[in-house]
Amino acid sequence: MTVGATSCTIYKKMKRIFLDNASTTPLDPAVIETMINTMKNHYGNPSSIHAEGRQARTLIEQARRTVAKLLNASIGEIFFTSGGSESNNTALKCSVRDLGVRRIITSPTEHHSIIHSLEGADLNKDEINIVFLNLKKDGSIDYDQLSNLLNDNSVKTLVSLMHSNNEIGTLLDIEKVASLCQENGAYFHSDTVQTMGYIPIDVKKMPISFLSGSAHKFHGPKGTGFIYINGDNIVKPLIDGGGQERNMRGGTENTYGIVGLAKALELAYTNREERAIYIRGLRQYLKEQLITTFPDISFNGAVENSHYKVLSLYFPASDKSNLLLLNLDIAGISVSGGSACASGVDTGSHVVRAIRGEADDGVNIRVSFSHKNTKEELDRLLEVLKSVLL
Amino acid sequence: MTVGATSCTIYKKMKRIFLDNASTTPLDPAVIETMINTMKNHYGNPSSIHAEGRQARTLIEQARRTVAKLLNASIGEIFFTSGGSESNNTALKCSVRDLGVRRIITSPTEHHSIIHSLEGADLNKDEINIVFLNLKKDGSIDYDQLSNLLNDNSVKTLVSLMHSNNEIGTLLDIEKVASLCQENGAYFHSDTVQTMGYIPIDVKKMPISFLSGSAHKFHGPKGTGFIYINGDNIVKPLIDGGGQERNMRGGTENTYGIVGLAKALELAYTNREERAIYIRGLRQYLKEQLITTFPDISFNGAVENSHYKVLSLYFPASDKSNLLLLNLDIAGISVSGGSACASGVDTGSHVVRAIRGEADDGVNIRVSFSHKNTKEELDRLLEVLKSVLL
Repeated sequence: MTVGATSCTIYKKMKRIFLDNASTTPLDPAVIETMINTMKNHYGNPSSIHAEGRQARTLIEQARRTVAKLLNASIGEIFFTSGGSESNNTALKCSVRDLGVRRIITSPTEHHSIIHSLEGADLNKDEINIVFLNLKKDGSIDYDQLSNLLNDNSVKTLVSLMHSNNEIGTLLDIEKVASLCQENGAYFHSDTVQTMGYIPIDVKKMPISFLSGSAHKFHGPKGTGFIYINGDNIVKPLIDGGGQERNMRGGTENTYGIVGLAKALELAYTNREERAIYIRGLRQYLKEQLITTFPDISFNGAVENSHYKVLSLYFPASDKSNLLLLNLDIAGISVSGGSACASGVDTGSHVVRAIRGEADDGVNIRVSFSHKNTKEELDRLLEVLKSVLL
Repeated sequence: MTVGATSCTIYKKMKRIFLDNASTTPLDPAVIETMINTMKNHYGNPSSIHAEGRQARTLIEQARRTVAKLLNASIGEIFFTSGGSESNNTALKCSVRDLGVRRIITSPTEHHSIIHSLEGADLNKDEINIVFLNLKKDGSIDYDQLSNLLNDNSVKTLVSLMHSNNEIGTLLDIEKVASLCQENGAYFHSDTVQTMGYIPIDVKKMPISFLSGSAHKFHGPKGTGFIYINGDNIVKPLIDGGGQERNMRGGTENTYGIVGLAKALELAYTNREERAIYIRGLRQYLKEQLITTFPDISFNGAVENSHYKVLSLYFPASDKSNLLLLNLDIAGISVSGGSACASGVDTGSHVVRAIRGEADDGVNIRVSFSHKNTKEELDRLLEVLKSVLL
């Protein structure tokens, strides 16, 4: 199959190094293959009762079964959405609207789909008490504060905390938070967009109300995600429509995206340990080389308790470090200053501000890995960093 | 490129006839090609500032320009969504939340993403007055009633009426409604999901506040749609998140779907007149043959003022007509009893009930065409109908 040239051909002349896998990941070839097959052969509306419809329905329900099995969830607890942001919005807004939640405990370093939901027209209301937990220097939450807050269970509470911070990789002690919430009768939502397919969660073993997943973070397609909603929590749709997704999410299902999501998640789990060992090796190698080469470097986030796919570097402000991101990009290396979702709006990183303070003007570089990266790519990154900074 | 077999292979042995193009449409091969190219080469997060991100951003903004140009809208008035249902939800819910709308005038035959939004937890509130217009036998609205209602402009009003009914094809006099709304200071949303790419609208010539489009209705991908929001209307997001879509729709953009949508809409407009003439010919042929062959047949909806892609047949109840849909499906012909979005829930058609009354038990068959159908396919449909009904 020939693929036509696009206006972006110029970029392809240079073999680029993509080290921004927390922002998004390249699609796995097997995922593309599955999606192409579906686009060509299974275009029926999954709600139609004729053969074309039933074929599409079968594919979606197979995908749901795959996802449910990997999380040890019931099939009826997995709902496909348009992505992580919609899933996060659903958890927050539907908890308030349908479950009577009047207090939301969260952190200042959550993803913007959480923070902006809390600040937005639906939740920024007098009757809803929003509590931002204190953070330690490594970006982890104050568990004692959370525990103390939950002791007061006079008001229906949702705790929403991300499993791994998307910018600095600090991991939540998700089991501990799940237990605290259960003990105190609070709902618990975890934005697991960064860890889904990387760090397994068994929802039968851990009491969680809501989990969010996004396919494009684990080598699946953009525009498709899911939300796990524990069967005990009866909420209504964020998007009303036909009876799709068991009346929980209106809109003709994105069959092509959904089969891609399931395929990608299956691959992520099948190869998880192997990929994790490989990526940990890359991360460790880069970290060691950086420490050896740059005496003034430090790292944002937790030292040990961090997602293995993220390494967040911090260089003190200097003339040389000033345009580092740009220089790396020109040299063909893609890393990030923080979250991609906030890159369009030039306000810096709310995560780094929260842990380093407003006044800090150092340079933060998030390097995020996938199993497709190589040691040679990291050597090239080090070479370019040296040429710019030293 | 080889495509693996799936569990649905059995269906492919029979060359099926797809006459359910109001429920969804097969993807155009050129659309698939564009999407494959994008999936393979442009996976960057459109919000990232590095080269991969900028490539994806360029593709999305090109797509937005394409859509805007076809509607004669400004680029800043087109927002990509996950589909028609999200677009319809946005128009209704954001109008109430952000524009102070306290009265919604609509019809009982709107799509479920409208009806269920009105009945749902967000809008079914005491302070919001929802008025359902009376319908004539052909499914068209009572324009005098609408005009009278709009004369009372003491309360901020949104009129939401679909351009073409998805089940029976009856067309709205959209220019008339747009004028009435403008004269009386009401907002006007039209669910144009069924007509987008089929019946052109120039938003500079017609005063419309919101329009909804869905790619999979015009040979584009599922999971992608858009909403046109007139630049005068400042609303906030339904889905909060990063600053995507000019702060109007959080969530990493579905680049693959968006380029597919733009390509499909471009093809729909480029070939519009040719396709329309062809489809009108198919519809006319089928109608004439049906009238000649089945003396007791009648047609739901408007005789003349109907979308050319839909023909809704009505057969009086009989032993033979009872399992007509099933028999057609077994014979390899896909048509629909009504809206696919409601097929999963066996409650019959709310549209046909609204125009024929609750007691009616006749059989409704929606035949909906695309430019890919042939006269030979219609002959086969007629043959099977004869074998079942006569």
